[in-house]
Parts: sequence; C-alpha cells; structure tokens
Amino acid sequence: MDKYCFLNGEIIPLTEAKIGIEDIGLLRGYGVYDGLAVIKGKVFRFEDHWNRFISGAHALSLNIPITPEKTKEVIEELAVKNGFDQRANVRLILTGGKTLNGIEYDFNKPTFYILVEKWEPLPEDYYKNGTKLITYRHAREWPTHKTTNYIQAVSLQDLRKEQKAVEILYVYDGEILECATSNIFLVKNGKLITPSDGILGGITRKVILELAKASGQYEIEERLVYEDELKTADEIFITSSFKDVVPVVNIDDFEVGNGQVGPITKDLMQAFAKVTNMG
Amino acid sequence: MDKYCFLNGEIIPLTEAKIGIEDIGLLRGYGVYDGLAVIKGKVFRFEDHWNRFISGAHALSLNIPITPEKTKEVIEELAVKNGFDQRANVRLILTGGKTLNGIEYDFNKPTFYILVEKWEPLPEDYYKNGTKLITYRHAREWPTHKTTNYIQAVSLQDLRKEQKAVEILYVYDGEILECATSNIFLVKNGKLITPSDGILGGITRKVILELAKASGQYEIEERLVYEDELKTADEIFITSSFKDVVPVVNIDDFEVGNGQVGPITKDLMQAFAKVTNMG
Repeated sequence: MDKYCFLNGEIIPLTEAKIGIEDIGLLRGYGVYDGLAVIKGKVFRFEDHWNRFISGAHALSLNIPITPEKTKEVIEELAVKNGFDQRANVRLILTGGKTLNGIEYDFNKPTFYILVEKWEPLPEDYYKNGTKLITYRHAREWPTHKTTNYIQAVSLQDLRKEQKAVEILYVYDGEILECATSNIFLVKNGKLITPSDGILGGITRKVILELAKASGQYEIEERLVYEDELKTADEIFITSSFKDVVPVVNIDDFEVGNGQVGPITKDLMQAFAKVTNMG
Repeated sequence: MDKYCFLNGEIIPLTEAKIGIEDIGLLRGYGVYDGLAVIKGKVFRFEDHWNRFISGAHALSLNIPITPEKTKEVIEELAVKNGFDQRANVRLILTGGKTLNGIEYDFNKPTFYILVEKWEPLPEDYYKNGTKLITYRHAREWPTHKTTNYIQAVSLQDLRKEQKAVEILYVYDGEILECATSNIFLVKNGKLITPSDGILGGITRKVILELAKASGQYEIEERLVYEDELKTADEIFITSSFKDVVPVVNIDDFEVGNGQVGPITKDLMQAFAKVTNMG
C-alpha cells in the first residue's frame, strides 16, 4: 500500500516527496518539529501540540504556511489514506526553506510537511515489568522548544540499545532534566515530582499532571529535581506522545524503589489509557 | 547558466537535486558539514578540511561514501562546470540518510552532497576600515565538530544585521569562544591570542597560526581567553574560510584598541592573501 504525506500544500505519495538540498533545514539544521498521535481517526490533544509548534516557530521566526484547522484535517485524512485506523505517529516539520547567503532564508517561503507513520508500540513487557534508563550529562540548547536538533539523542541510540535501555535521561549540573524524547516523573511518599525548567513541556506530561490533579489523590511538585533523588524515589516513569506512560525500574546500575512497577505508576498508566481510549 | 552539484555519487543539475523528506538530516538535524574555498580551480587546504570532516563523521558514526581524491576532483570539476574560475564556496554535507524508527538510520545508506556556490566577498571597506561584532551568551553543543546545527547562528542573523555587525561572538561563563561561523584572534602587546578550547578548529585559523609562527615575529598564545580581554586588546580580527581575515574595530558598544585596523592584523591579512594567491 502506497503511503502519502503532505508537503508544501499538497497530499502526495511519500516516494515523491522530496525537497531541495539547499533547504536550511538540512544545511543549517534550522527547523521546528512536533510529534503527535492520531488515535482511532482523531488527533490526540491537537490544540496543545499546535500551540507548542507555533511557539517554536515564533522563537525561530518561521512562518507557518497552514492553519491549525487544515493541519488537523490533513492529519486525519492521511491516517485514513495510509490505512492507520487504530493509531499512528504524526510528525510536523517546518524549516526556513531554501538557504540564502549560506545562512539566511526567505520568511515567505518555508518548507512544511506532515508525515503519518506506523505506530510501533513498545513491547508489552515494558509496560508490565518496567524498563531501564541510562543517564547522560547533557542539556539541550533550546530546551523549551522542539527544534529539529536531535544530534545528541541520535548519537546515543547505539549506546542505549547496548545497555538495553528504553531511553536516555539527560542530567546536568546535578539536576534531572528530561529524556531524549520523553519527560520524567518521580514518585516519593505518594508525591508526584517532575522537573519544571530547562525541559520541553511534553503533552503527555501535561495530561498526566491534569489527571493527577483531577484525581485529588496526589500532591504534585513541579520543580528543580536533583540527580540524587533518582536513588531514593519509590517509583519512576517516563511519558511521551509515541510511548504514553512507561514505568522505569532500573537506571544505569541501580534499581528504582523495590525494582517493581509501582502502584501510582500503574494508576496513572490506567488513567492515561482511558483518556486516549486505548485502555 | 545551469548550476550543478554532486548528490549521492552523481553530478546533476542543482534544480534536480532533491532528497526524501524522511532524511534524518532534516527530521533530526543529524549531519556534518564543511565549508571550503576553491580558488582559481584548486581547493584551498583540502586535506585539512577533509580531516576535520572525517573527524565529525566519526563522532556522529556517519559513513563517508566517497574517497578524498574523488571529493577533490568533483569539487574542482563543479567549479569549472558552474563557471567559477576565480573563487567559489564549497559545502560538503553528510547525513545518516533515511530515518528509521523515527530516530535511527542505516549506516550503509548515508546522504552525501557537495554544493559549489558563488563566492560573495564582503565589501572592500570591511577589510580596509574594519567591522563590528556583537556578543551573545552561547556555547555550541558539539563545539569541536562542524555539525549541521546552526540554529543559534541562523536565529541571530536579523539581530546581527540590525546592529550592522559582521559576526556574532559567542561568549560563555566569562570566556570568549568563537563567532557563529568564524574564529577570533586578539592582539595584545605584539602577542597573538586565540581561544583554544570549546571551539571549532577553523582552517583559516590554523593557517594564520602557521604564518605567524613562521614569521618569527609574534608570540602566540592559544589558551582560555576572558571576555574582559576584548576591552583591553590592541587589535582584534576574525578568520573564516569564506571571509579570510577580517579586522574588527567595534564590539557591541565599545571600540577595539584605537578604533583603527592595526598593523599586525594588516600584516597577517597580507600574509594570508599571499598564501591563497589572492594578494
């Protein structure tokens, strides 16, 4: 089955979707990105993703050549056209278009495209028995925006696989920040704790905070989180639009809490699954 | 006149040179880059550039699908074909090729291309009467490698032009590092001073150090340079493969030295012009 995408105003076959090699998204890595889930034909939390996307575009002075309504419509159309009736991964990419003078671009001629791809769920066992993180000393350059700069993340994939880890946790200056493509939560004495600054505000993270708050069961702390707290946490989990809520039972060479997926993690995994209708 | 480039093994018209939108160089900004000058038909310091390029490729585990001999030959052929008999800018770009699983790539299928573009010299007045820099608090993520990540540099171009500056000088933690696409030198009491760490080792910078050493006239210090030293320097200049040696007489709101292009800067500009046969 041929796959389709959306490139600069048109839905076209993915095999024909190409851009010029002078694009500043390539030459200078100048672009913003977003990753969304389309679930049973509907984009999950479209407005939140869109707001993040436009905030990144503004930060980079990029012109978004499409309305949110049209974007949502195209995503849902591509999900059908590509045969993903259950769930798919969506990527929005916006660059400055053709490079001028080696380092500039024409604001009025951006490159914008949408990919709707097969969703590959993590193994069931990861959700049941938990996963491992490895830590790496790094802080992203533009942490609050989702730029296309994932050089550090991509370069660590071999190490991640070697170490049988699901994600790489960036720590910097004694602080826990975020994973390469996920956010992190700690549970301690029934409190839900997550880093507040120097991170990308994930949409799954946002929904988890909303659910935890609405349940009235958990105290929530969004704050600076120290690396030391990893070793004393009762539970840890990560969140991402393509992975949902994933329990973490090992970090580097130590076990988290009692090494089992904890009750609060399980509770929030269930609550999240209900929201996405995947539960 | 049609322009040509080299893409994945072939010399083709630039208008036909396109790559798939799933390239990890676009989606994840994962690539290395180099910028060279081809002067009167010959690549300037090809071996130095190539060594830097392969060092970056190794750091990012990227496969270079071409030999240095072939690369040099293609560059020189493109300079002729594109009608640049005096001088041209050359860009080498290497990415991981098509993205796999959203964040990986096949080592054996990289994307590699070469652009040979019109060299646009800076106005003569810049070399005669000097230029201005603006400072910006920033340190690049992978400073010793020339990755394609120039998000900070591109995003500052409007500010640079507004301030009538030729370049942006990155300073961090009280230290002078490098400019967005140039290196920096200070002259103090006849000594030549340049930052040693946390920078990209420019080839023009290297040649200037060689020339200064060979002349036997200057003491040279490659070391940590403090931001304070900008205000007490006698002379300042920057170096880059596309700009050669450019005198700096203003930084932000202050004058460098006596506000004139200094004698040591002039001497090294002349020496460099001789080496490139542009003198």
